[in-house]
Amino acid sequence: MIDLNADLGEGFGIWRLGDDDALLAVVSSANVACGFHAGDPATMRRVCTRAVAAGVAVGAQVSYRDLAGFGRRFIDVAPGELTDDVLYQLAALDGIARTAGGRVTYVKPHGALYNAVVHHERQARAVVDAVVAYDPALAVLGLPGSTLLRLADESGLRTVAEGFADRGYTPAGVLVPRTEAGALVQDERTVVERAVRMATEGVVVAVDGTAVDVAVASVCLHGDTPGAVGLARAVRAALEEAGVAVTAFAP
Amino acid sequence: MIDLNADLGEGFGIWRLGDDDALLAVVSSANVACGFHAGDPATMRRVCTRAVAAGVAVGAQVSYRDLAGFGRRFIDVAPGELTDDVLYQLAALDGIARTAGGRVTYVKPHGALYNAVVHHERQARAVVDAVVAYDPALAVLGLPGSTLLRLADESGLRTVAEGFADRGYTPAGVLVPRTEAGALVQDERTVVERAVRMATEGVVVAVDGTAVDVAVASVCLHGDTPGAVGLARAVRAALEEAGVAVTAFAP
Amino acid sequence: MIDLNADLGEGFGIWRLGDDDALLAVVSSANVACGFHAGDPATMRRVCTRAVAAGVAVGAQVSYRDLAGFGRRFIDVAPGELTDDVLYQLAALDGIARTAGGRVTYVKPHGALYNAVVHHERQARAVVDAVVAYDPALAVLGLPGSTLLRLADESGLRTVAEGFADRGYTPAGVLVPRTEAGALVQDERTVVERAVRMATEGVVVAVDGTAVDVAVASVCLHGDTPGAVGLARAVRAALEEAGVAVTAFAP
Amino acid sequence: MIDLNADLGEGFGIWRLGDDDALLAVVSSANVACGFHAGDPATMRRVCTRAVAAGVAVGAQVSYRDLAGFGRRFIDVAPGELTDDVLYQLAALDGIARTAGGRVTYVKPHGALYNAVVHHERQARAVVDAVVAYDPALAVLGLPGSTLLRLADESGLRTVAEGFADRGYTPAGVLVPRTEAGALVQDERTVVERAVRMATEGVVVAVDGTAVDVAVASVCLHGDTPGAVGLARAVRAALEEAGVAVTAFAP
Repeated sequence: MIDLNADLGEGFGIWRLGDDDALLAVVSSANVACGFHAGDPATMRRVCTRAVAAGVAVGAQVSYRDLAGFGRRFIDVAPGELTDDVLYQLAALDGIARTAGGRVTYVKPHGALYNAVVHHERQARAVVDAVVAYDPALAVLGLPGSTLLRLADESGLRTVAEGFADRGYTPAGVLVPRTEAGALVQDERTVVERAVRMATEGVVVAVDGTAVDVAVASVCLHGDTPGAVGLARAVRAALEEAGVAVTAFAP
Repeated sequence: MIDLNADLGEGFGIWRLGDDDALLAVVSSANVACGFHAGDPATMRRVCTRAVAAGVAVGAQVSYRDLAGFGRRFIDVAPGELTDDVLYQLAALDGIARTAGGRVTYVKPHGALYNAVVHHERQARAVVDAVVAYDPALAVLGLPGSTLLRLADESGLRTVAEGFADRGYTPAGVLVPRTEAGALVQDERTVVERAVRMATEGVVVAVDGTAVDVAVASVCLHGDTPGAVGLARAVRAALEEAGVAVTAFAP
Repeated sequence: MIDLNADLGEGFGIWRLGDDDALLAVVSSANVACGFHAGDPATMRRVCTRAVAAGVAVGAQVSYRDLAGFGRRFIDVAPGELTDDVLYQLAALDGIARTAGGRVTYVKPHGALYNAVVHHERQARAVVDAVVAYDPALAVLGLPGSTLLRLADESGLRTVAEGFADRGYTPAGVLVPRTEAGALVQDERTVVERAVRMATEGVVVAVDGTAVDVAVASVCLHGDTPGAVGLARAVRAALEEAGVAVTAFAP
Repeated sequence: MIDLNADLGEGFGIWRLGDDDALLAVVSSANVACGFHAGDPATMRRVCTRAVAAGVAVGAQVSYRDLAGFGRRFIDVAPGELTDDVLYQLAALDGIARTAGGRVTYVKPHGALYNAVVHHERQARAVVDAVVAYDPALAVLGLPGSTLLRLADESGLRTVAEGFADRGYTPAGVLVPRTEAGALVQDERTVVERAVRMATEGVVVAVDGTAVDVAVASVCLHGDTPGAVGLARAVRAALEEAGVAVTAFAP
């Protein structure tokens, strides 16, 4: 059993990014943009409605307030303000999801915020504070070993670790930085195989060839290129062929 | 028994507008800005927290998306998008109010949207649709005789009509347009007297001197100038002296 | 001799719209978005640089401030503010064009503002005021018969009328409203033929079959779909085959 | 001879910050907000018009794109994008200043960007690149010893160092960090005396009591509180009494 998650609803106004409908047929969890890096209210409502219809779990993909930078630039926002920014996004999406017959069941930080809370104690704490304040029954989806998941766990939140079949891992089980060789796995068959092995054995082959334990409950897929959607479908098909059920961790 | 309402939390980031704390000691209902014409998440949370502490009802002051124009410019937004914009604002504020121990109990459109939905059938319907979708137990606060209140009522929502002690009324009981003589009542003693008579008798003296019935359950106060706060206090004091209880219509 | 114009640089941040590079090989005038409905500074600079390299004239495609609505919603902005908004956009683009070795040579309103200034006297005047204040040597590109072109002309600005080969015309020579039959011409060969006839004879066949005079110095092309780019290329090829030189009206 | 500079036009839409008119009667250089941290086009035009009338130099106070944070939060924006963002703001303000009969004569980064370019080589370079691309005759106003001024100087730009009469200095002549004791000088008479000594002797008394050389051509004043305006006036009066002419460095 494994969860597949992807970012959805990342357009804004007239602009679209990725193929939301195609991905909703592949993933079990949709990280829905909440308006701060992408995602206008009409897009949020459409994605929530379709996710509910497809039986896909809805998560709040919360971000720094940065439409111009798509949330990909670190912002040194004060923790108190970050808590309130996350709370605002989370509440807005949850309200929309509820009118669509669903609800938000987890939170996943986006882009630069995702990267920041791997180590940035105060911002990680700020995100956790928002989730606890809104609903302590929500799960937090993030990088295994991150400060975010540690603090979320300490605060009594359910934490869910995710893996990346298209990213290289070090022998220590962490991602190879994007600036280093081996950061990206581009061969599609290899990506599919890595996804299956993560799901079935909890193991990934690191850049030095050793097999490393990666206990992940979700695999992150990408959908912002046509090729990515095809790859996402291939991953799901291979998982099902291997007898792995694709199921949301927080339905 | 009468409700007093005022707009609160209308700053944004570093900028402030009006004296929120002073008004919270006067009104029974706070129309809290939700981020589209004013109101950042930190301000929303602070106002909600203080409103809950002060026993003041929290309403969603929803607006066109227009920070630069403070929501005071008509925007010909498509009804479906307007519904989703209102839903987003309402849900965001309600989530924040809930973490503060309260909740949103009513919706009041702001500025140009307030004026538009007096007559604009499709936009009025769009606002009503959002409220019904989010929570049919919410009340709608607006102008007596407006399309908004008519459609809200037809949709089964509770409607609350408000009066303006500092605005002139025609013999037909509607506001004198701002471009005409008698639109504004500026003498403070007169404003206080009109507020008391609205609350006690449901009557206001029109520009032609006739007494007109205005059945209002709430009186709208302003707070964005120091003088306005003093006037708001005087209105409340006079009401209490006249034996009128100032109480939220939707606590 | 005819000018071909199209909207360019209408992405924002990560989002793209249309194929700027393909269009730059077809048009003689680029209406470049200035940041209010689309167009971030990096996109503006890239488009200006490439337009200058391609010998394409740069125009300021000015808009209401409305990223969420892509400038397609009428906003009842006060004329004085509209003048300043247009001035800001125009100056920003011109400064960027100058660093790229070019300069802005004309102004064309976008979307809902384009439609508004066909009849809205005060907003049309506001746009003209901004152009005159910035540089009275600039041209104004717009709809023949519009209030905008009339006021621009009265203010001593050069005016340039544009035609639409893919839009139906009434016998009076004005566009068929989009809500009526015959508003759109979708057959590609017909569109190409209409463009050529506009350029060579100054004539278009109206919905009732009569030939109508349309004295246009520019034809507007669209580029936000792959098919549109192909059609734009076909129009240019047919014009050149017919011996018409495609040349900017304001190089 | 000394220049006095202050931040102006830092409102947005309905919101105001500081007393622009009062400051224009005190300073010789106005750092005008350009729309990214504050400053809508109408405010920019009003401030430029009044600055020109008052004989005050206009500078572009460029910022990260961050209205919600008033430009006070570091953003890890890519240098190329920062260059274009600065260019956009600079060009917009200069165009507006020109229609008001003036022009931008210098650039001063705002808030978190001001602090970043003290040390952040790539962002400092990005700002310098924008100024050079726009107009190499512009001056750059900043902190003495900053990376910004060093790179600007190396690029052939005129650099102007500024001092702060209300901030503590270390014996090395740099500002005491805000987190340390002695960072702020709050006694008004002391602030006035320090401003005069900076202007007349190029000296400031450091936190350890030693007199330190600070060769500044401009003194930065603040205006966002009523007290600050009074202090600014007192500084100017004391300078004139001491025979120092208050004159813009770049008229």
